[in-house]
Amino acid sequence: MVSPELLRRYPFFACLSYEQLKAVALIAVEKTFPKDTIILKENTPATKLWVLIEGDIDLIFSGGGEGAIVNALVGSIAPGEALGVSSMIEPFQYISSAKAVAPCKVIEIDGLALRALVEVDQKLGLAMMRNIAAAVLERLKYTQVELAAARA
Amino acid sequence: MVSPELLRRYPFFACLSYEQLKAVALIAVEKTFPKDTIILKENTPATKLWVLIEGDIDLIFSGGGEGAIVNALVGSIAPGEALGVSSMIEPFQYISSAKAVAPCKVIEIDGLALRALVEVDQKLGLAMMRNIAAAVLERLKYTQVELAAARA
Repeated sequence: MVSPELLRRYPFFACLSYEQLKAVALIAVEKTFPKDTIILKENTPATKLWVLIEGDIDLIFSGGGEGAIVNALVGSIAPGEALGVSSMIEPFQYISSAKAVAPCKVIEIDGLALRALVEVDQKLGLAMMRNIAAAVLERLKYTQVELAAARA
Repeated sequence: MVSPELLRRYPFFACLSYEQLKAVALIAVEKTFPKDTIILKENTPATKLWVLIEGDIDLIFSGGGEGAIVNALVGSIAPGEALGVSSMIEPFQYISSAKAVAPCKVIEIDGLALRALVEVDQKLGLAMMRNIAAAVLERLKYTQVELAAARA
């Protein structure tokens, strides 16, 4: 577990009460990944959620294994940002791969346990799903800008 | 208002009970837009949410008015899909513009009223925010594929 105080530093846990942060802290651990670690793989079951504390992560799209498109950079995760939000959204499959491009320190949350918490505590659930939706929208906004630039 | 039965046809309203669909139906209307209508504008307050019944909508990113990038196509909305999900996610600003590229028929929902419903009925709120997050993730997935193709 991690301390609720650690979670409270990140906007991704905004609007959670101290009791709710304590519940999430129980299913979270701190982890490190060496440079070049593939943290998650596209099209695999999304069972974990991370918040990046230190480091830098690239998001890579490999065309779902069809081979038409190989290893295109489609985004990056900076400290304070969430990774693996697909673990909280049906159909619970990662939509790109993620690679540590520097040594990384993360908070790792058990996605299945967090889904269970969302089910039993709807107030926590609503707050978390709002934060998840905001994180995905922020990523979409960035990706649209990159797409517009690539097409300009 | 529209009928709850109309809403029930769309996956965007999945997991809402009949009572909850009735509440949402009260703040929804059916509307049509002629071809070439700008339905919403980038960087303006997001106060409405739509589900496309018939037609075709382009999502256009214009670089936030900075002039560096002009009118790049960054996505499209097909029948059954939601438009204007930013109306349910802070900071409640549309992130691109949307233009009807064919005559469109939509369900238009008052975003402020829906936000109020989400506040007072957390069960409805959790279901709606899950559907919103799923809609944004689906859009992100599509945009990442397009970005990867543009960069390939």
